[in-house]
Amino acid sequence: MASIFTKIIQGEIPCYKVAETDSFFAFLDINPNAKGHTLCVPKNEVDKIFDLSETEYLALMQFSRNVALAIEKVIPCERVGMAVVGLEVPHVHVHLVPLNTLNDITFLNKTKVTPEEFEMIASKINAAFTAL
Amino acid sequence: MASIFTKIIQGEIPCYKVAETDSFFAFLDINPNAKGHTLCVPKNEVDKIFDLSETEYLALMQFSRNVALAIEKVIPCERVGMAVVGLEVPHVHVHLVPLNTLNDITFLNKTKVTPEEFEMIASKINAAFTAL
Repeated sequence: MASIFTKIIQGEIPCYKVAETDSFFAFLDINPNAKGHTLCVPKNEVDKIFDLSETEYLALMQFSRNVALAIEKVIPCERVGMAVVGLEVPHVHVHLVPLNTLNDITFLNKTKVTPEEFEMIASKINAAFTAL
Repeated sequence: MASIFTKIIQGEIPCYKVAETDSFFAFLDINPNAKGHTLCVPKNEVDKIFDLSETEYLALMQFSRNVALAIEKVIPCERVGMAVVGLEVPHVHVHLVPLNTLNDITFLNKTKVTPEEFEMIASKINAAFTAL
């Protein structure tokens, strides 16, 4: 069965898209730790990040770096943090989280974002990504 | 002033070393989330991961993948998680954490490890890394 992320990539489930290439897709986390919290996902549905081939893994890391640089340009924060956990959805995803305090990366403190804010944030990051 | 990680790399502060290449160094986190929690650090002292050049960043990610594959071989866990936070020590470090539950990556639940266990864990991961 397709993962929830594959359904998002295929447009069956809506999302706030941030960036897309032939192999990768990035969208805003709908239950974000902080405003601008983004998930970077390979279109190839693999469960565990270290089961990706070295080539696929490094391409995902390169894509995630570009998305992070775009986030840094448009979301005020001390720095962008990165996390790969994967205990909930069995489809590799790199969390990119604008950080101001350690709380922003514990996944225990969530931030409320309105649909209008999600739209605006996604659009800003996308513009910065496209301009890289 | 040299960061605490530079002092560890230079041998001024002792550590439980896991792996080393010309450009990178990995050692056990002394206050681990879980047994086997490892830090991967570039010898080049840079504060923020996304300030590394793309080449340096991808080389660090490649090194971290190899260390993670070694950890997976010798530490029982559901999977190895990865996190880059960096709010405490201004020298890039990739956390690799053997995960069984989400608690293992919140950085709020710490595990007690004796010096003998640290030695044994570091030696096992090092052997697996060398055999990759």
